Amino acid sequence: MSVRVVCVALCLMSTGVFAQITPSLMPIPAKISTGTGRLTINNNFSIRATGLTDDRLELAIDRLYARIARQTGIPMGRTGVALPPASKHSALLIDCRESGPEFPALNENESYRLEISNTEAHLTAQTVTGALRGMETFAQLVNMDGEGFSAPSTTIDDQPRFPWRGLMLDVARHWMPLPVIERTLDGMAAVKLNVFHWHLSDDQGFRVESRRFPKLHELGSDGNYYTQAQVRLVVAYARDRGIRVIPEFDMPGHATSWLVGYPELASAPGPYAIERNWGIFQPTMDPSRPQTFAFLDAFIGEMAGLFPDAYFHIGGDEIDDTQWKKSEAIQAFARHKGLATSHDLHVYFNRHVQQLLKKHGKILVGWDEVLEPGLPQETVIQSWRGQESIADATKKGYRGILSFGYYLNHMKTAAFYYRNDPLDGAAGKLDPEQTARILGGEACMWSEYASPETIDSRIWPRAAAIAERLWSPRGTQDIESMYDRMEVVSRLLDAVNLEHRSDYQHMLDRLAGRQPVEPVRVLADAVEALGIDDRQAARHYSIFVPLNRLVDAARPESEKVRLLEQAASRISSHSSGNPADAAVLRTALEEWRANHSLLMPLAQGNSLLEEVLPLSEDLAALGSIGLGALDSLQTGAQTSPTWLAEQRQVLAKIEKPKAEVVLAAVRPVRILLEAAAKRGGQTTGASR
Amino acid sequence: MSVRVVCVALCLMSTGVFAQITPSLMPIPAKISTGTGRLTINNNFSIRATGLTDDRLELAIDRLYARIARQTGIPMGRTGVALPPASKHSALLIDCRESGPEFPALNENESYRLEISNTEAHLTAQTVTGALRGMETFAQLVNMDGEGFSAPSTTIDDQPRFPWRGLMLDVARHWMPLPVIERTLDGMAAVKLNVFHWHLSDDQGFRVESRRFPKLHELGSDGNYYTQAQVRLVVAYARDRGIRVIPEFDMPGHATSWLVGYPELASAPGPYAIERNWGIFQPTMDPSRPQTFAFLDAFIGEMAGLFPDAYFHIGGDEIDDTQWKKSEAIQAFARHKGLATSHDLHVYFNRHVQQLLKKHGKILVGWDEVLEPGLPQETVIQSWRGQESIADATKKGYRGILSFGYYLNHMKTAAFYYRNDPLDGAAGKLDPEQTARILGGEACMWSEYASPETIDSRIWPRAAAIAERLWSPRGTQDIESMYDRMEVVSRLLDAVNLEHRSDYQHMLDRLAGRQPVEPVRVLADAVEALGIDDRQAARHYSIFVPLNRLVDAARPESEKVRLLEQAASRISSHSSGNPADAAVLRTALEEWRANHSLLMPLAQGNSLLEEVLPLSEDLAALGSIGLGALDSLQTGAQTSPTWLAEQRQVLAKIEKPKAEVVLAAVRPVRILLEAAAKRGGQTTGASR
Repeated sequence: MSVRVVCVALCLMSTGVFAQITPSLMPIPAKISTGTGRLTINNNFSIRATGLTDDRLELAIDRLYARIARQTGIPMGRTGVALPPASKHSALLIDCRESGPEFPALNENESYRLEISNTEAHLTAQTVTGALRGMETFAQLVNMDGEGFSAPSTTIDDQPRFPWRGLMLDVARHWMPLPVIERTLDGMAAVKLNVFHWHLSDDQGFRVESRRFPKLHELGSDGNYYTQAQVRLVVAYARDRGIRVIPEFDMPGHATSWLVGYPELASAPGPYAIERNWGIFQPTMDPSRPQTFAFLDAFIGEMAGLFPDAYFHIGGDEIDDTQWKKSEAIQAFARHKGLATSHDLHVYFNRHVQQLLKKHGKILVGWDEVLEPGLPQETVIQSWRGQESIADATKKGYRGILSFGYYLNHMKTAAFYYRNDPLDGAAGKLDPEQTARILGGEACMWSEYASPETIDSRIWPRAAAIAERLWSPRGTQDIESMYDRMEVVSRLLDAVNLEHRSDYQHMLDRLAGRQPVEPVRVLADAVEALGIDDRQAARHYSIFVPLNRLVDAARPESEKVRLLEQAASRISSHSSGNPADAAVLRTALEEWRANHSLLMPLAQGNSLLEEVLPLSEDLAALGSIGLGALDSLQTGAQTSPTWLAEQRQVLAKIEKPKAEVVLAAVRPVRILLEAAAKRGGQTTGASR
Repeated sequence: MSVRVVCVALCLMSTGVFAQITPSLMPIPAKISTGTGRLTINNNFSIRATGLTDDRLELAIDRLYARIARQTGIPMGRTGVALPPASKHSALLIDCRESGPEFPALNENESYRLEISNTEAHLTAQTVTGALRGMETFAQLVNMDGEGFSAPSTTIDDQPRFPWRGLMLDVARHWMPLPVIERTLDGMAAVKLNVFHWHLSDDQGFRVESRRFPKLHELGSDGNYYTQAQVRLVVAYARDRGIRVIPEFDMPGHATSWLVGYPELASAPGPYAIERNWGIFQPTMDPSRPQTFAFLDAFIGEMAGLFPDAYFHIGGDEIDDTQWKKSEAIQAFARHKGLATSHDLHVYFNRHVQQLLKKHGKILVGWDEVLEPGLPQETVIQSWRGQESIADATKKGYRGILSFGYYLNHMKTAAFYYRNDPLDGAAGKLDPEQTARILGGEACMWSEYASPETIDSRIWPRAAAIAERLWSPRGTQDIESMYDRMEVVSRLLDAVNLEHRSDYQHMLDRLAGRQPVEPVRVLADAVEALGIDDRQAARHYSIFVPLNRLVDAARPESEKVRLLEQAASRISSHSSGNPADAAVLRTALEEWRANHSLLMPLAQGNSLLEEVLPLSEDLAALGSIGLGALDSLQTGAQTSPTWLAEQRQVLAKIEKPKAEVVLAAVRPVRILLEAAAKRGGQTTGASR
């Protein structure tokens, strides 16, 4: 086996080469060298623990069999049918030393080494958690080649850059049943995220059974809550995958749902009803009454028994102080305690809650707003405000995790999240000790605009880009390589039961009514859904508005369009043009041009498709413009300045969002049009 | 509300009208009349039992909420969020009288009446089982219109034509884990099939835990068997859906897997190993030893406690008598008993087994081969041989169910199964009493060529056509209407978690390697998979051959091609042609023509796509031929006789199967070509 040692940092500089020699791994390992051989994967492939083994490792072996079987279509498993003795045997041998703590914990050793030869793969790790990470890498390496399925000869030495790599999921705004949580954890494990931050309460719902205070879930959840047994199941499910579970109970604001059953916690008299709209609301806990803290003491005590992780999130963001200001009792209390401002009241509240957490063995995590002198140094600040805010916290001796720039519900591009680094604000400002207090980051998925049916496509595959940012060496920066690998990983996530791909199909079928779905897919593949800011500006949303429209089916980013952009860019930079690229573009453009006449009849008597007709018309126009430009590029025929000017105007008009989606298809067409203009010497630039 | 009473039998004669006035129900109800109103379905829709209720009905209400939520994307449910009081309320009120027997049984009353007005839907049924059937009808009626989702004003009086409407699933050849069974039962319930015939043992596997004889599952299953707890779960799951579960333990042939653990049951000395190939094999139980029957006595006793249904299937088909003939002991026994032939030995065996069944309270069901004088009249014969065989049985006083012509693994068209009627052999031959002994039929799914990943697409949606044949009035015969409705039902089945649509996507992704999947889908949508006969002729198959090729992803029938055939037929019969049809055809034909150049690069280094390249080339050729014909039809330009002759030759060549699939795309192209020929006066007919 000939081995080329490849330095990731170097390779990243030359994308072309990189794409060839790096298998589609995400996150990219810290160190990888590739050989030329292959380890055959057939029915006779086996996975065995050769060192220490325990329940987690054995379950992980079963999952890895199922995963590879699903990826390859080759049945396999511990209990599977053995091939006749003549056939080729291959194996993954896993050697680890220790089980590690009973539940995953911060700063565990997650490192592993994976060596794959033509006959065997050896995975070695100090801990089972490290082995779990390495097994995910192995699964991603299994791929088809000309002879069947195999894993390429590779040597990997890997460990994470940050110890805290999280995903926050809001299950309050839209209720997310247990299967959503399970598959989310599977997806997290697949890309080596290790903290599941469970946003369990907000104005719109209280989602955990409390035996101590049953009116919390009975009156605050519409019946949509996790039983304590289900919470234990989730914690165990996460543990099996090396993932910590950190509960968040948002307080003192974002707390309406608590107050439905316990109005006495509020700063103004009740009664309260579960909030049905999105936004920031007035109901806030009363920091002036000792009963509030007695309640929280008992509540935190109960929850501390359910959630084994040392960290406990109390939210603490976005407090509307109207109730505090209006309450004479609270104002009198504040004067008595010398708390001059609402901010001071919040600090007072946090200090008390922190003491309760400490009493129950927990460390406080909160959003930026909780950061105030007096909190113990062990506190972790989760920053939605930015790198400055996090740098500020670490200077004060606190530890921080970044979420600013990782809000998936903003529906930014994967590239946007990928470029955002927890240490962006550290260079030159923080000393090494301070820098080390930046523990990592968390992708955030708020669920105002996501249902159990759409949540997967809002999280995946973009969360994989954030996972790579938090795991891989800082030099891992190549955007094209990231997209190439992310799109592969997106398909692989289908093998861990994520539904971002299958639900898309289902939602398109629904949009098509009982008619052919193809024209709907052509349109949906060409658009991208807008994020929370644009959606809340577009119409009034609440829990009562179904998320079953094109914008809900549409992805945040179109793979199809990216492919076409790549082809268009290549064509525009080579005068001759690549015939394969031209074929891909022509097929898509003709499809777009023809699609409106196919889609129109489906929209009759279809209440969901009516709004997309203008988009469909625009797409047809894009097809025509693109074909005009492509013809010009291929034949060398000059485009007229008038025509070009007109088409640019059309594109400028078409690129404006409609029905809460944007026609991503504009992008490759603009590339072609400007290339045609350049060929003809009529450049004006895309900025016009 | 104006109501038009519609006689199904009449309407069936004029397809066009029929399609308009009949909602997409499958099976078609016995009597239906449609009005002009609509019942709004929004978050505020509720389902309530107004008469008797029990655990089955309440669970069914929960499922119906989830089902409609999945179909519409509108969250709803018992515990769901209520809309503000101003919004429109609507409800399905279910009134039934009796719970019926503890477990579903033959000849239960399955009738129901469903009346839907603008404000409420009323479902009335004597039994909960009838209500379950009516709830499935209601789910199918929920559809999108111009104002949102609704159920149309309708009055339905419905009951089944046959009491025994089954699906046989072979879990021996390829192991089918529990989730497959569950979703299969959900699909069955959705189309009102009521007998799950579970083929639990065969040469290739023994799939149930036996505590009495643990070596059956321990040595006979590769570890792939249902525990007794799982069997109980399946029986309960089926019961909840009004489905009987009939186990089949095939004997005395097809029994290799029993003999691995208990070679003493065999007619020749062991040892035995689980069979890995497909076919008919020699290992057969020994009918001459009393120990065989003692074993079966204890085994049947154990299984009788697991399976509550009164009927018990013993297989009894395809006996290879080599072992019997070679055994001196058995031959001596036969002479002693006066059993002249192997056939007589089989009869002897069956009589004994029947007595054991009777002892344990069970009625024997067996394939045609078991039918011999001496069996009690209550015996049910399942016929794979045909309507003659079943007629013969009923004349002798036995009851019969038809499976001949319902073998899904033969991969025939839905139309083929649909045309096949259990009473086809009865007319003029059987008196009413004899006719009444034909209880119904069963679709059969043998699993030599189906894995858990492909099984859904082999069963669904075609089993729905068989379900309609067995439920709906005999006059329900319109093939086009059946396809239109079946394709709608195919999508609705996605809402009961069947994977025939989502697994297709997953398998195409796999075929594409890590490349764009679109060109693979274009090809896969244009082909149809061959059945067992053609596949076993094509290459040697066994349990070791993965089912992950194009033929495994491809469907038995292409919806896409059917759509194009319809468009081509309309164009060919109207000289002017319909612009929408022409657009659909042109888009598809251009896509086909362009597809090969897109697919070719994907096939490099792709061991699964290599074999499909010739098909892909053929598809491109079809695109060109179709476009030539379409141009000629649209422009009126004459096609030359030479060109026509050449194209016909090409089609004749292309229509031959390759890689175990057939290019269905030939069909619409041939229609266009012959239409062009006819227009030019050059008809030779498609038969050439």
